[in-house]
Amino acid sequence: MGIEIERKFLVKSEPDSWRQGRALRLTQGYLAKDKTSVVRVRVTRSSEGEEAWLTIKGPTAGATRAEYEYPIPVSEAREMLDTMCDSVIDKTRYLAPEGQHTWEVDEFHGANDGLIVAEIELDSEDEAFSLPPWAGQEVTDDSRYYNSSLSSHPFCDWGGPSTS
Amino acid sequence: MGIEIERKFLVKSEPDSWRQGRALRLTQGYLAKDKTSVVRVRVTRSSEGEEAWLTIKGPTAGATRAEYEYPIPVSEAREMLDTMCDSVIDKTRYLAPEGQHTWEVDEFHGANDGLIVAEIELDSEDEAFSLPPWAGQEVTDDSRYYNSSLSSHPFCDWGGPSTS
Repeated sequence: MGIEIERKFLVKSEPDSWRQGRALRLTQGYLAKDKTSVVRVRVTRSSEGEEAWLTIKGPTAGATRAEYEYPIPVSEAREMLDTMCDSVIDKTRYLAPEGQHTWEVDEFHGANDGLIVAEIELDSEDEAFSLPPWAGQEVTDDSRYYNSSLSSHPFCDWGGPSTS
Repeated sequence: MGIEIERKFLVKSEPDSWRQGRALRLTQGYLAKDKTSVVRVRVTRSSEGEEAWLTIKGPTAGATRAEYEYPIPVSEAREMLDTMCDSVIDKTRYLAPEGQHTWEVDEFHGANDGLIVAEIELDSEDEAFSLPPWAGQEVTDDSRYYNSSLSSHPFCDWGGPSTS
């Protein structure tokens, strides 16, 4: 088991230096999303090709959560996304190095268009990190920004707030 | 993707020749069980050792259903069973050869004690097969006998019917 410790921030419209990082296109859906477990199917597409992953996450405790990740065939992941997921999230992920860490900046498309969120993964909950100039309000504990939540309650239905 | 075509029957108390087959102990729980998908974690224990599998099943259509199965580390499966599954099914599976097919006869323990169910996997819905002398009523379409259902509505709570 991996333990996932993440902090999540909204992203300001300027500066957008994070766009210079390597980009991946992510398409993902959920086979389960309840309080005790989340089961995610994800296809990643980059200049290096396509991969697919099945990820299982346990209950969230603060910024920490158990996570198990397994590679699966892309064709099987696409079948699951098409037949077992009621809604699918589509986003571009930019990898933005900043000091010792690499931020993942997710620019959402489709029903979540307009939303840009940055995540940093830490080794412990009290690990220090520098906040980039484009990082805005922290939303780690705001469940509306969970991807599992965005798949059924997308940003376009919120009526705000602005991410800038 | 595999396509799972199964028929399921209750098992009479006599004859119990199926007990002579190879036996596996199965412990399994569910990360998801809804109409569009079932996500099962299973640990199998036999004289040959332990294995664990993550299985994803699509919607049921008659006796047919899409199925995807991936091996995972036993230690991770046990963590998921302990922390993400509200109830766990425990059963002994006997493999009973009968003509061209091998039946799987599941004798349940714990909250499903007293229930014995046999399944045969077919290549097509109209494939012929011989019914063993210990096979009783067919329950293929009875959702109460789905393992995902037995985990939350166990046999001990039914007040019958008898399996003999």
